[in-house]
Amino acid sequence: MSLQEWMEELKGEVQIPFTKRDLERALLALLRTDNLWDALRLSNVPMKLLCHFWNRLIQKGMLKIEEGKLRLTEQGKKLCEELSLSKIPSFSCKLCQDRGLDWGDLSNLAHKFLEWTKGRPSALQKYDQGYVDLSSVWSRTAFLWKQGDLAGKEIFVLGDDDLSSLSFAMTKVVKKVVVIDIDERLIHFLRQIAEREKLPLEAEVHDLREPLPEKWIGAFDTFFCDPTESLPGFKAFVERGLLSLKGEGCAGYFGLTRLESSLSKWAKVQKFLLEKGAVITHILEYFNEYENWEYLQKMRSWDWLPVKEAPSRGQLWYTSSLFRIEVVEKKEIENRKLEGNIFDDLEVATT
Amino acid sequence: MSLQEWMEELKGEVQIPFTKRDLERALLALLRTDNLWDALRLSNVPMKLLCHFWNRLIQKGMLKIEEGKLRLTEQGKKLCEELSLSKIPSFSCKLCQDRGLDWGDLSNLAHKFLEWTKGRPSALQKYDQGYVDLSSVWSRTAFLWKQGDLAGKEIFVLGDDDLSSLSFAMTKVVKKVVVIDIDERLIHFLRQIAEREKLPLEAEVHDLREPLPEKWIGAFDTFFCDPTESLPGFKAFVERGLLSLKGEGCAGYFGLTRLESSLSKWAKVQKFLLEKGAVITHILEYFNEYENWEYLQKMRSWDWLPVKEAPSRGQLWYTSSLFRIEVVEKKEIENRKLEGNIFDDLEVATT
Repeated sequence: MSLQEWMEELKGEVQIPFTKRDLERALLALLRTDNLWDALRLSNVPMKLLCHFWNRLIQKGMLKIEEGKLRLTEQGKKLCEELSLSKIPSFSCKLCQDRGLDWGDLSNLAHKFLEWTKGRPSALQKYDQGYVDLSSVWSRTAFLWKQGDLAGKEIFVLGDDDLSSLSFAMTKVVKKVVVIDIDERLIHFLRQIAEREKLPLEAEVHDLREPLPEKWIGAFDTFFCDPTESLPGFKAFVERGLLSLKGEGCAGYFGLTRLESSLSKWAKVQKFLLEKGAVITHILEYFNEYENWEYLQKMRSWDWLPVKEAPSRGQLWYTSSLFRIEVVEKKEIENRKLEGNIFDDLEVATT
Repeated sequence: MSLQEWMEELKGEVQIPFTKRDLERALLALLRTDNLWDALRLSNVPMKLLCHFWNRLIQKGMLKIEEGKLRLTEQGKKLCEELSLSKIPSFSCKLCQDRGLDWGDLSNLAHKFLEWTKGRPSALQKYDQGYVDLSSVWSRTAFLWKQGDLAGKEIFVLGDDDLSSLSFAMTKVVKKVVVIDIDERLIHFLRQIAEREKLPLEAEVHDLREPLPEKWIGAFDTFFCDPTESLPGFKAFVERGLLSLKGEGCAGYFGLTRLESSLSKWAKVQKFLLEKGAVITHILEYFNEYENWEYLQKMRSWDWLPVKEAPSRGQLWYTSSLFRIEVVEKKEIENRKLEGNIFDDLEVATT
C-alpha cells in the first residue's frame, strides 16, 4: 500500500486535514519509541490522525501491541524502509531541554513558587484546563524577560491555570500583572498569595466570551495566554489579548500544539495574526510541557488510543510550541460577545 | 525628550519602519554591553535605525565613546530609568548556545568538514556572501534531521557559501543533495570534494534570477537557502525554493535577520509565505551565526557606526533566525526571469 492509498483510506475517517508527511511522522515516532505516550509526544501529528492511523496499522498486521508496547512488525518495518524512513537521533540539549535558554538564575524563585502553589486548584475538564510544569513556567518567565517584555511592563494574563501570572509577578521587575480567569478557584488562590506576599498582581474573575471591559483595553505592554486549541477558542483569547495592548511594539504570547491542531489550522492562526497587525517573532517547539491531568481517561481521545494505559508518573507527553508575536500595525479589533461552545472543533482531542 | 519625540526626530532620517519598542531595544543593548559588536548582536533592531539612534544619543550627550566603548552618560541612564528599562539577565544556555539542540553526535563529521573546507572560497561582497560558523552548519544539519527533512530525502540548496549542502551530504542519510550557486568558485569547490569523497551531492552553477530549469521543478522534499535580505531578493530565493518542492508536506528553510529586516518586513515575508501555501513551523532566534567577512569595512553600514573598529577575532555579531516552513497547500508559483538589482532595499546594511 502506498502512502497515497493510506491517505485515501484515512481521509473519510479522520475528517481533519493532513498530508503524507504526517503519516511519515506517525511512523517515525514508532521507530523512535515503543511507548505510547512518548510516541504521542515525539510525533508532531494531530492525535486524531495518529490514533486512527496506528489502529489501522494494527488491523493490517504492521503494528502490534505487546505488553502495552507499540511494536512494528516485520511488515511494518518494511513499510518504513520503502518510505526511506529511519530512526532519528535525539539531538536533545540535556541542559535546557531544547528550550534554548537557561532559567537557572531564577531557581530560588522557582523553589518558592513550588512551596506557595502546593495547594493549587486541580485541572478541570469543563474549562479545558491542564497546567504546565515548573520548568515551563520559569522558562516562560525567563524568555519574556529576555525579550524585554517583562521588566517595567504592564502584563495581562488571559486565563491562567498555569499560574504564570504569579511567576511573572514574583520577579518583582514587572510594573504590574493583571490576570483574569473564568475559574473563581484560581482567582481566589492567586489573590490570596498576591496579598500575603505583597506582589504587583491583580486577579479578577472574567469570562472571555464576554466583551473585554473598557479598563483593560489598550492598557498593557504584553499579553500572555495559553488558549484552548479550537480555532474559535484560540481567536477569542488572542483577539482579547491584542485588544488589551497599547499598540505598536507591544508583544503577545501563546502556546499552540501539534496534537490538537493540524498544520492547516496553524496556517489559519498565522493568517489571522497577520491580518490583525501582528508579526510572529518566535516559534519554539516543545517549550510548554503539561503535567498530566486527572481527567485523562475522560478525554475524547482516550477511546482512540491503541493502548489504554495511563502515562507513568512524571511522564510528560502533551506539549506546545511557544509563539511570540509583536504588533507592527495597530488595527481595529472587534470586542463582541462570543456565543456557543468555543472549546470545540474536529481536531480537538483532550476535552 | 519622550520616545514619541525621538520617533519623530528619527523618522525622516532612517526612512525605514520602526516602533518605540525598537528604540527601547537599542537602549537595552547599551545597558547589557559597552562593546559595539555585542550591542549590535544583542539589539534585534535594524542596523540603520540602531546606528542613527546611537549617533543621536551621542550628539545629545546621552551616550559617549570612551576608548572605543559605548558608555551611557548620567543623562542616558536617566532616559533608561524614565522608560523603566533595566539590564536583562542573559539566561543563555551554555551547552547549546540557545539553539535548543545538541549536535554533539555529529562532531566527528564536523571535524572532517573543517579539514575538507580549509581552502574554501572567501566571501564576496558582489554576491552578498558571508558564511556561518561551524557550529551553525552542524546545528542546521542536526535540526533538519530531527525534523525528518534529511534522512531519505532529496534536498535542494539554493545558494551555498555556507557549504551546508556538504554537511547534509556528509551525513550519508540523504537520498541526494543538489546545490546551485551563481559563484563558480563555490560550485567547483563543492564538486571536487563530492567527487573525491563519493558523496550524494551534485553542484551546478545557476543564477537565481533566471527561471528555474524544468528538471528541478517539483523534484525535491526539502529546500534550504540563506537569502539576501532585501524583500525582492528574499522572494526570489524562497519562490524558487517552493517551486522545487514536490508538494504538500515538503519543507523549506531560510534565515532572516533583525539587523537588516524590520519587523514590518518580517510581516511581509510571513504574508508572502502563507499566500504561497506554506505554514511556519519554527522560528529560532540566533540560530545562524556568521563568521566575519573580509569586506566588513566596505559595507554601507560601516559609515553609520559610532565606533569604527573591527570586531575582535572570533567575535560573531551578525546572526539570523532560522525559519522552517512546510507546504500545506500546493499553489501555482511563477517562474519568471527577475530583472534588476535584487540585492537592495532601504533596510539592507551589509552590501
